[in-house]
Amino acid sequence: MRTIDWVDDAIVIIDQTALPETERLIRITTVEDLIAAVQSLAVRGAPALGVAGALGVALAARLYAGDSLRAQVEAIETARPTAVNLARGARRAASRIPEGPDAVLTEALAVRDEEIAASAAMAARGADLITELCGPRPRMLTHCNTGALAAVTVGTALGVVLELHRRGALGDVIASETRPLLQGARLTAWELSRAGVGFRVAVDGAGPFLMARGEVDAVVVGADRICANGDTVNKIGTYAHALGAHRAGIPFLVVAPESTIDRDTPEGAAVPIEDRAGDEVNGAFPAANPAFDVTPHDLITAIVTDRRVIHPQEKW
Amino acid sequence: MRTIDWVDDAIVIIDQTALPETERLIRITTVEDLIAAVQSLAVRGAPALGVAGALGVALAARLYAGDSLRAQVEAIETARPTAVNLARGARRAASRIPEGPDAVLTEALAVRDEEIAASAAMAARGADLITELCGPRPRMLTHCNTGALAAVTVGTALGVVLELHRRGALGDVIASETRPLLQGARLTAWELSRAGVGFRVAVDGAGPFLMARGEVDAVVVGADRICANGDTVNKIGTYAHALGAHRAGIPFLVVAPESTIDRDTPEGAAVPIEDRAGDEVNGAFPAANPAFDVTPHDLITAIVTDRRVIHPQEKW
Repeated sequence: MRTIDWVDDAIVIIDQTALPETERLIRITTVEDLIAAVQSLAVRGAPALGVAGALGVALAARLYAGDSLRAQVEAIETARPTAVNLARGARRAASRIPEGPDAVLTEALAVRDEEIAASAAMAARGADLITELCGPRPRMLTHCNTGALAAVTVGTALGVVLELHRRGALGDVIASETRPLLQGARLTAWELSRAGVGFRVAVDGAGPFLMARGEVDAVVVGADRICANGDTVNKIGTYAHALGAHRAGIPFLVVAPESTIDRDTPEGAAVPIEDRAGDEVNGAFPAANPAFDVTPHDLITAIVTDRRVIHPQEKW
Repeated sequence: MRTIDWVDDAIVIIDQTALPETERLIRITTVEDLIAAVQSLAVRGAPALGVAGALGVALAARLYAGDSLRAQVEAIETARPTAVNLARGARRAASRIPEGPDAVLTEALAVRDEEIAASAAMAARGADLITELCGPRPRMLTHCNTGALAAVTVGTALGVVLELHRRGALGDVIASETRPLLQGARLTAWELSRAGVGFRVAVDGAGPFLMARGEVDAVVVGADRICANGDTVNKIGTYAHALGAHRAGIPFLVVAPESTIDRDTPEGAAVPIEDRAGDEVNGAFPAANPAFDVTPHDLITAIVTDRRVIHPQEKW
């Protein structure tokens, strides 16, 4: 299963708004439909958005040229503001526009293949680190969805959890439900269930207390953007879990490909945080709905990428 | 409007499971129905539960005697394990059983009237303290529902917010939605809306980030039980907000009547935490569902009761 791929001259994605009830593929043949899929979160997750950006530009390069193409590329880059991967994937594919549409597609497919390879590398390195830090059969808490559905295959933080399961080295899993859109309760639960991993869903507000009560040995999350100082932008609710892990004295790990590291952004306060429509939270009353939050680097035990383990409290 | 009262030989409550869509009263004439209302959270909130316990025993004293009555009293006391007020209200009314049913009812009505007086005292004292700590027009975050619906009238933490509003001394309000049963998004939002207070609902996981981003000047919550060392048991999600407030350097206030203080329980770890059914969280997958959490006393700036302001980090 690939969450996003290029098949018969079109982008094909799993419609994540329909899970877990319905497993449905969407075939995308226009830039407009790609942007709509990104904005509705039919495709989501930083690594998958990088591939969506690259494949979107590959699609645009077959349909447009000149100023029109440039406008389409910019529309793709800016479809969502927080994850750095989307714009980065789009720009990387766009860099080959002078060589023609086939070169753009080749580059986009390279972005896809690199994300697949990065997922496998992160899963192995992250599982090694968790075992080193926590010993056998740790009980893990994760937030949002960072599995295959957030990447192309395998995923980031959930890839580590699944790798521990494959090794027979996993204890229990708490999937934080991740309001307002319930990526944990819908998508992570669906992936864990398909993989035969024992887990329980919990409300987001329960995470720090489950840690305090000694029911969690480590927290693993993904990232939408990692700043130059290690501050990590991720799905709203991540920061609360980081505070809980810090107080409980358990490891808090960020798992993300190198492509998520943004050296051009010095710290979390400089990242534009997407405020989404209030009706995602509540249909009856007005709502504040920041889609992401910032976890300061001092709360992060380690960042695991496809190439290394970073300790953001030290110089890196 | 009284959330719970004694009218024409019956307990009358507002059915909180039906709000905000439907405003419906339930007339309760059996102990069985009173316990069902407590367990389904049709009546909820520590002060209201104290009154429910007392009025429930008043009802039982009119229907039963001897061992049967003793069994009914015990069933009421233990209908929910965490809030100390329920058992305490029930026991207080039961202490008058030897004097006959009318004496029991008199005592239960005294519990009700004391809760009404306590609410008014807490609102005034809490509003004074917030103004002292935060200056004019503070932006407040509150969790769960602690308004009139949690007491008989006025409430605890939300009573303070509404008192600031009446004084023209309130800024903005964030109502944390309070998963799984959405007491914030349903009940607090409904009360604020009826009072004409400007507010926004936010997902529980957003609280600490909204504080870090400088959008909250103080957090006010209620309590289900306050231990001898000041550790406070309250609705799940409270502890995460306390961690956020501590990191952001803003006041975290607990507002609760003296009847919520349990000197017989030394610390939070000794309180039985009610684990409720997982299907409240998620219908499709298994869930962990602790209904309450413990906020350690070192994270609490002050506890405001109907009689005093307690600083739980000092001797009290």
